[in-house]
Amino acid sequence: TSPQGICACLSCCSPLLEVVCKLTGCLEISWPLFVFFSSDIEISRAQSPKAVDVLAKEIGLLTDEIEIYGQTKAKVRLSLLERLKDQPDGKYVLVAGITPTPLGEGKSTVTVGLVQALTAHLNINSFACLRQPSQGPTFGVKGGAAGGGYAQVIPMEEFNLHLTGDIHAITAANNLLAAAIDARILHENTQSDKSLYNRLVPVVNGMRGFSPIQLARLRRLGISKTDPETLTEEEISRFVRLDIDPSTITWQRVVDTNDRFLRKITVGQANTEKGFVRQAQFDIAVASEIMAILALTTSLQDMKERLGKMVVANDQKGEPVTAEDLGVTGALAVLMKDAIKPTLMQTLEGTPVFVHAGPFANIAHGNSSVLADKIALKLVGENGFVVTEAGFGADIGMEKFFNIKCRASGLVPSVVVLVATVRALKMHGGGPNVTAGAPLKKEYTEENLQLVADGCCNLQKQIQITQLFGVPVVVALNVFKTDSPAEVDLVCKIAKESGAFDAVPCNHWSAGGRGAIKLAQAVEKAANQKNSFKYLYSLELPIVEKIRIIAQKVYGAQDIELSPVAQSQVDRYTRQGFGNLPICMAKTHLSLSHQPERKGVPTGFILPISEVRASIGAGFIYPLVGTMSTMPGLPTRPCFYDIDLDPITEQVKGLF
Amino acid sequence: TSPQGICACLSCCSPLLEVVCKLTGCLEISWPLFVFFSSDIEISRAQSPKAVDVLAKEIGLLTDEIEIYGQTKAKVRLSLLERLKDQPDGKYVLVAGITPTPLGEGKSTVTVGLVQALTAHLNINSFACLRQPSQGPTFGVKGGAAGGGYAQVIPMEEFNLHLTGDIHAITAANNLLAAAIDARILHENTQSDKSLYNRLVPVVNGMRGFSPIQLARLRRLGISKTDPETLTEEEISRFVRLDIDPSTITWQRVVDTNDRFLRKITVGQANTEKGFVRQAQFDIAVASEIMAILALTTSLQDMKERLGKMVVANDQKGEPVTAEDLGVTGALAVLMKDAIKPTLMQTLEGTPVFVHAGPFANIAHGNSSVLADKIALKLVGENGFVVTEAGFGADIGMEKFFNIKCRASGLVPSVVVLVATVRALKMHGGGPNVTAGAPLKKEYTEENLQLVADGCCNLQKQIQITQLFGVPVVVALNVFKTDSPAEVDLVCKIAKESGAFDAVPCNHWSAGGRGAIKLAQAVEKAANQKNSFKYLYSLELPIVEKIRIIAQKVYGAQDIELSPVAQSQVDRYTRQGFGNLPICMAKTHLSLSHQPERKGVPTGFILPISEVRASIGAGFIYPLVGTMSTMPGLPTRPCFYDIDLDPITEQVKGLF
Repeated sequence: TSPQGICACLSCCSPLLEVVCKLTGCLEISWPLFVFFSSDIEISRAQSPKAVDVLAKEIGLLTDEIEIYGQTKAKVRLSLLERLKDQPDGKYVLVAGITPTPLGEGKSTVTVGLVQALTAHLNINSFACLRQPSQGPTFGVKGGAAGGGYAQVIPMEEFNLHLTGDIHAITAANNLLAAAIDARILHENTQSDKSLYNRLVPVVNGMRGFSPIQLARLRRLGISKTDPETLTEEEISRFVRLDIDPSTITWQRVVDTNDRFLRKITVGQANTEKGFVRQAQFDIAVASEIMAILALTTSLQDMKERLGKMVVANDQKGEPVTAEDLGVTGALAVLMKDAIKPTLMQTLEGTPVFVHAGPFANIAHGNSSVLADKIALKLVGENGFVVTEAGFGADIGMEKFFNIKCRASGLVPSVVVLVATVRALKMHGGGPNVTAGAPLKKEYTEENLQLVADGCCNLQKQIQITQLFGVPVVVALNVFKTDSPAEVDLVCKIAKESGAFDAVPCNHWSAGGRGAIKLAQAVEKAANQKNSFKYLYSLELPIVEKIRIIAQKVYGAQDIELSPVAQSQVDRYTRQGFGNLPICMAKTHLSLSHQPERKGVPTGFILPISEVRASIGAGFIYPLVGTMSTMPGLPTRPCFYDIDLDPITEQVKGLF
Repeated sequence: TSPQGICACLSCCSPLLEVVCKLTGCLEISWPLFVFFSSDIEISRAQSPKAVDVLAKEIGLLTDEIEIYGQTKAKVRLSLLERLKDQPDGKYVLVAGITPTPLGEGKSTVTVGLVQALTAHLNINSFACLRQPSQGPTFGVKGGAAGGGYAQVIPMEEFNLHLTGDIHAITAANNLLAAAIDARILHENTQSDKSLYNRLVPVVNGMRGFSPIQLARLRRLGISKTDPETLTEEEISRFVRLDIDPSTITWQRVVDTNDRFLRKITVGQANTEKGFVRQAQFDIAVASEIMAILALTTSLQDMKERLGKMVVANDQKGEPVTAEDLGVTGALAVLMKDAIKPTLMQTLEGTPVFVHAGPFANIAHGNSSVLADKIALKLVGENGFVVTEAGFGADIGMEKFFNIKCRASGLVPSVVVLVATVRALKMHGGGPNVTAGAPLKKEYTEENLQLVADGCCNLQKQIQITQLFGVPVVVALNVFKTDSPAEVDLVCKIAKESGAFDAVPCNHWSAGGRGAIKLAQAVEKAANQKNSFKYLYSLELPIVEKIRIIAQKVYGAQDIELSPVAQSQVDRYTRQGFGNLPICMAKTHLSLSHQPERKGVPTGFILPISEVRASIGAGFIYPLVGTMSTMPGLPTRPCFYDIDLDPITEQVKGLF
């Protein structure tokens, strides 16, 4: 039995990215929910991780293919992909979930438990590919996100803190671009064309020349000249002026801290900025488009191109202004040159894990990196398994995994594991509200077969959504100690009747890999099933049509309704040539609909699209269904009250 | 001969911290000064660094005393200090400089050249201890700071970019504290005492208890109770309310980016912050007090105590509010647990280098870390040398090195190396203005013995300042190819007549360690001289008296004059019990006086103190002589225009 009965937050382990979104709605939660689960770090600490170079050797990495960071982390070089390019890929498993309670239902622990079962118990090669958590919630409300109980990534403090610096690199790159935008506007506003030109293309040592990135800009402007002395005044003016319309700037600064006072700010108020004030905001670092790019890129060259293509604003004529126009592409790539390499860690049972990228699951696609998956699929070999996780419920995270991530990677998934809990099913069946921070009502701690049966409609619907993509689905019931055997049996029975290939109870939280052996066996069988994977929509369809397909087929909406703003944004993106990108819906994960309180399988609703934005470098359009907060806050009593460092043993305390 | 004739900026290598200050005055410099020195990265790349574990073994580190970060960097564990505690210290050498031109005179290259000479050419153990540069200027105006020519730290791109993440850790810790301040004010302003208490001391699983950091706060409040149920209403109110006066907040947010639009901002403008807007600012990350603490701390325990003592504001009664009051000490220590370990790298000639901490040289003390020096002094052994560098001219960097850093460490310096250039001396002798970005006037490129002779007054004065501290001084003349033999001889002659133990020309930039052999020999001899090191002032003196001693004895001021604001600040700090801290003057480095245009040895001036601030955790009071910018900006054409990454070779281009 599992010790999760009272508060299963820890079993949730849904990366912090999700919680950022969940919790912005409940900022007044003022005490750590997880204080009685302090055993997580004790479990983590009780197990000494093997040296990462030993692990690397075990999984077939060559000495010069890893860059060790301390004893327990290593970055893996992309050259590996070239060396193993003729090796067949392993099986590709996605862990998704039903519509969760605000506490999360345990996708991360299932992911870790499953690979522990496969490799440590069934002797099958496997790799877990996880997202890197944001540090903001670690010190705010949620605590860490390394997994939980006996299904964790260790050492958890390394996983939850700076790791190998990828989020810091994203922050640096993101903010360099932000600083470049405002500085450029200031310089253009305070200098003549001639003066700008003399500074942008200076005489150095008697010579004057364009830099490569400037030559590229000239080419985009249709100017084929390469000698700075030969440009006409009109050409000079077009070259030196990006003419950014400040009201259209969409590029925001970021910090990896829950800093609510930065949600809306005014910048440029010092005298040195000569009155060019404007309203702006900071987002949490993982909301940066650069994070989404890191997750979707397939090579250094591809990353550089995506970074250059990022649209940061429009010019006064309504044309997009990019990072490339600002001359900063190369610098961004330099800042990201190490971040592009996945970080190797291990589970509590010593099996390999990649931690790489952690984009938001609403304004971005909420999946770990394509590169980590690709490398892992080569490393496990043809009969091995790579298990990765999609943020939120299957209606959001899985849909994006298929339509956005698999499209970017070209990879074909073998199996979907759909995580369910009796608790969440009871909620969908009409059980009382489940609220973070409040004790669970008795409906959730006592047997209630009716609530379970009624709630299985959500499970059924999520199974059907999976089937839209033609991939076999195995339901993993994450068992809590308060779940009765009859409840567990009922869920598994209904799941199988609803089209799941199999449905099995899991006890990985309390038993580690041993508790997920049945799941592993079911997944292995399912992976040999016929697989007719397909995307849900063609990219060639108009933006609105693609949104409608997702809303109707996945969410079960009757139709969609765009606000006038959203419609004009769709028109602009289409005109600018961005109409053929996939769609990344920013919708609540607490309901299949846009209304978090509507549980089960809502029907008959019209999905309202308030705004439509774009991440051109990452390569998707993201319609907003309601408002999405991109900066969580600190509650009255943040987690940091309990976090401490023993200066003698150097051990971290209070990080859950 | 050295190729530095035209623009010796690269030879300057004064860590970026200095340049931040220099350049805020000349933001309109819009092209890279250093474009014709691109050979620096070529030189760096032409030399393959040895693997850092090989280097570590060479210098006597045990396998479990290092944490490798990639092939060329490693963190060194503090446990080393315990293992080697009975080992005698080596000789401790400080590299300082005369009052520089805005281009810098080459302290970093001298530091690197000297250790290369000692170890690679004279077979004497040595270590260079350098500051980590800020990434802001690397992409802004200055470029990198790894040294230059044949006296560099390699690989320079690793040195100049994320390194091992210390500045990112500082940023995270600094900003967590900043977020905690504003969030706390909001929560106190919107909740009753009872509600705050219920949230700060919640009932969890039927139990209610104070966390250790809350018990510590109770003790500071003189409340000895430990049962939350027994506090009186008045005690509860005192416990839950920090009662921060928002107008007194001195803790600023930071980014490691040159972002001028963050110099003055308004925060809290989102509706969720309920109208609690206030004016604030971002500083560059290296200006954080946490950076100064990292540089001055002597152990994990000491760092934790310093972090807790940081004063962030006053309460409504005028009493200091600390990080400890906000409950964040442990979390800050956790974020800084790896940053406290110095990073091991190597020079171009394979000798060991520690890179650790890089505080501002004006609002902080501008020296690399005490811990790196301490560890290096043990590693080099009794006859070995540790060479470190102080920011700015000797009047600032060296004075702070002695009075602040040596006081914190208890270490006694053996020798000061005073770096001079013919160029800077000519400026002090009345030569025309030297401006970054403009070609040097002919006075600087042709022989002019009179200007040199007249300018040696500054060298003489800086030698006298050194002698105030009772440490032998060796003058290192950093020779440029345009310097005539007669000029070089003249400087060395005057230096020796002025009391220098020796004075030698150096050609390390073009010749590496070989070009600094004579300097190394002179330093070795000087280290065996009688040494009567003493601090300049007693900590027991009143703040104003300590400021006056520095102004008169070091700068040559007639007297000081405090503004009424400064006087009231002195009174408050004295009343708050901070009167016994050392003084960290924030003064221009371009003159011995407060007026940058006054070269040579200004006399008869009254030093105006406009404000007096305090870094209580770092442990110093910093009087402002004029205004100090703590956030540089991006020029019209930032360095990043030339920075690029080759996606095939993974090589960085354009980083100088």
